[in-house]
Amino acid sequence: MEFIKGGICAPEGFKANGVHCGIRKNKTKNDLGLIFSDVCCNAAGVYTQNKVVGAPVVVTKKNMVGGKARAIICNSGNANTCNADGEVKAKEMCDLVASAMGIKREEVIVASTGVIGQSLPIEPIQSAISSLTEGLNKEGSHDMALAIMTTDTFKKEYAVTFKIADKVCKIGAIAKGSGMIHPNMATMLCFVTTDLAISSNMLQIALKTVVDDTINMVSVDGDTSTNDMMMILASGLAGNDEITTQEEDGYEIFIQALNAILKNIAKDLARDGEGATKLLECIVTGAEEVKVAKIVAKSVITSSLFKAAMFASDANWGRILCAIGYADAEFNINTVDVALSSGFGRVEVCKNGTGITFSEEYAKQVLLQDYIKIEVNLGGGDKSAKAWGCDLTYDYVKINADYRT
Amino acid sequence: MEFIKGGICAPEGFKANGVHCGIRKNKTKNDLGLIFSDVCCNAAGVYTQNKVVGAPVVVTKKNMVGGKARAIICNSGNANTCNADGEVKAKEMCDLVASAMGIKREEVIVASTGVIGQSLPIEPIQSAISSLTEGLNKEGSHDMALAIMTTDTFKKEYAVTFKIADKVCKIGAIAKGSGMIHPNMATMLCFVTTDLAISSNMLQIALKTVVDDTINMVSVDGDTSTNDMMMILASGLAGNDEITTQEEDGYEIFIQALNAILKNIAKDLARDGEGATKLLECIVTGAEEVKVAKIVAKSVITSSLFKAAMFASDANWGRILCAIGYADAEFNINTVDVALSSGFGRVEVCKNGTGITFSEEYAKQVLLQDYIKIEVNLGGGDKSAKAWGCDLTYDYVKINADYRT
Repeated sequence: MEFIKGGICAPEGFKANGVHCGIRKNKTKNDLGLIFSDVCCNAAGVYTQNKVVGAPVVVTKKNMVGGKARAIICNSGNANTCNADGEVKAKEMCDLVASAMGIKREEVIVASTGVIGQSLPIEPIQSAISSLTEGLNKEGSHDMALAIMTTDTFKKEYAVTFKIADKVCKIGAIAKGSGMIHPNMATMLCFVTTDLAISSNMLQIALKTVVDDTINMVSVDGDTSTNDMMMILASGLAGNDEITTQEEDGYEIFIQALNAILKNIAKDLARDGEGATKLLECIVTGAEEVKVAKIVAKSVITSSLFKAAMFASDANWGRILCAIGYADAEFNINTVDVALSSGFGRVEVCKNGTGITFSEEYAKQVLLQDYIKIEVNLGGGDKSAKAWGCDLTYDYVKINADYRT
Repeated sequence: MEFIKGGICAPEGFKANGVHCGIRKNKTKNDLGLIFSDVCCNAAGVYTQNKVVGAPVVVTKKNMVGGKARAIICNSGNANTCNADGEVKAKEMCDLVASAMGIKREEVIVASTGVIGQSLPIEPIQSAISSLTEGLNKEGSHDMALAIMTTDTFKKEYAVTFKIADKVCKIGAIAKGSGMIHPNMATMLCFVTTDLAISSNMLQIALKTVVDDTINMVSVDGDTSTNDMMMILASGLAGNDEITTQEEDGYEIFIQALNAILKNIAKDLARDGEGATKLLECIVTGAEEVKVAKIVAKSVITSSLFKAAMFASDANWGRILCAIGYADAEFNINTVDVALSSGFGRVEVCKNGTGITFSEEYAKQVLLQDYIKIEVNLGGGDKSAKAWGCDLTYDYVKINADYRT
């Protein structure tokens, strides 16, 4: 497996484009994007768990009942959520794409991110649909990735290539993280393409499996958005024998490739969390169950007190132990070891649940780096998990306290 | 029922004192306090749910097996937690009080708050024990309240008086909230005295009942400390017939008085949260179950995004709805109404889960006040709950990012 360029257009059969249509005032920023497949794709998705479900999510879920799709349209600047006419507008977006591309409305996935509770203006999208569809091209991943960004400070775009038997397969992905021009809520959107031949059912299983170990192990601020959406389209053009069961060799190869690409996306989402200056990776080992390792890892990277300490490069291990202690899982706190590491070095701070002597000076140097690993060994088994987060900074408060208007 | 002065010394039989012994460097701040009862008290307590349990909590729990106590000793500046010799030191603190006052070690409740993972110096406590015990007096609540404070910006001290039959009863309480000179974790300590005659068993039931509606409905930053402790001592000197069942008239009167005093403490803890500029009160009505109302209320006041918006006096109701939506409880999001109110006025922002038009200018004025109520009507039943929190500010990050040494 190898990382390559091209993002979501790297796999065979996919084109993309992104334009500025006018939902956002800043004319230099794309606010409307489209991914299109030459052929009908098997598709799968995972969606927000929030009870408040954005209209685009509702419409997409309905369209996806058959497990097929050919296009993904996404705007930024308005979440099209909690409006009286949200579903009507989301369907109109699908209709515009369907009509321009000669496909069915049900083959279109629709997503939105931005301020909620304000009616989505459909006119800018109507006006831009020709230029958006006519401009679809094999180098369009970049423009599409820009179109879904909000206060993201860098683009999240990856592609990998790998072989199943002698067939070259590819996966591409773009994502947006936490932050908006009009801060309202931190939507996570991630769109993945692949030319692998795989059934819709297996695609859904694979996506869920990998998302649980990657994207779902990220936390910026503990707030789950109403519009979160993660979609994957498989064009089948790689020409491999279609994967229809987990027992086939290709399935495990695909899982590993998808995991590699989504792990990068997960780390990027955390690194680019609102106001973040550091990427935090909590690695929990020695658990009796993976579930326990996951709960503990997430508890550590979610603690506001710990996140603030990391902003200050402060080896305040008491806060780590505190967050481990209130994690809702069963394990023995008296066998817990904690170490902190980075490119600078590694320092052990806690052994068997009790503090040990260490050089604060050296620990400070370890923590002054921008990629910090928190190693937690529960000392009770051989299962492990990783979670990613970021520090809590003045800028997080600043970004989210900015008045909307 | 009436609020009175005197704090924990208001009820018959209690004296207190607070001194500077030297655990903290700042000589102008008390760091050691003692509450003492002339008679043996029925006692009850609730403790941290963290798996990392501070040594003082461990020792207190053991001492409290019989449900009796006469003294509470508490130091600030060192949490006596995650040290190899924590329990030995906590027992020594009990022994020092027992020996000086001529009581049993098991009659002493011990608590500590401060930095964790550092051995507690016992010498300053040994040296100060004579002056601490000899100085016990009926006006000592103030000095004791100061002794347990850390970065609290004001003292939390209340007392109420009420009658059961013709007997005058009193309850006093002091507490400390979230913040430390050496920030490490935000311990909540609350000590309550009463001269009511009530069995240990009923005292425990009453305490748990009231704490669940008051102290447990506060969140500053979602981090549960290792040293949280809430203790109540009942001297019985009011002379009422001892309450031994929930059916007796006095029980309900006591519950109401305890609720009134602990609700004030709860609001103070939230108002004085680290870096806070506003007290937030979320009132959830229209729930089918109290449990649902509680979960929703806590979800709102715990959301970092919403807390940051309140710092900016921004009527960003989308974040409220988002936090309601991800609350882990069953209700219909389509019947949810939300309004914001304060001393300035009231503004409805959301009806049946959808935004409604309101004056942003007026809403801003409502939110510029320092006591904000968030009214959430779930529209599904007649149960309700309240939760208290505070805004998320630059100062929260500053206080918690300060380097320990």
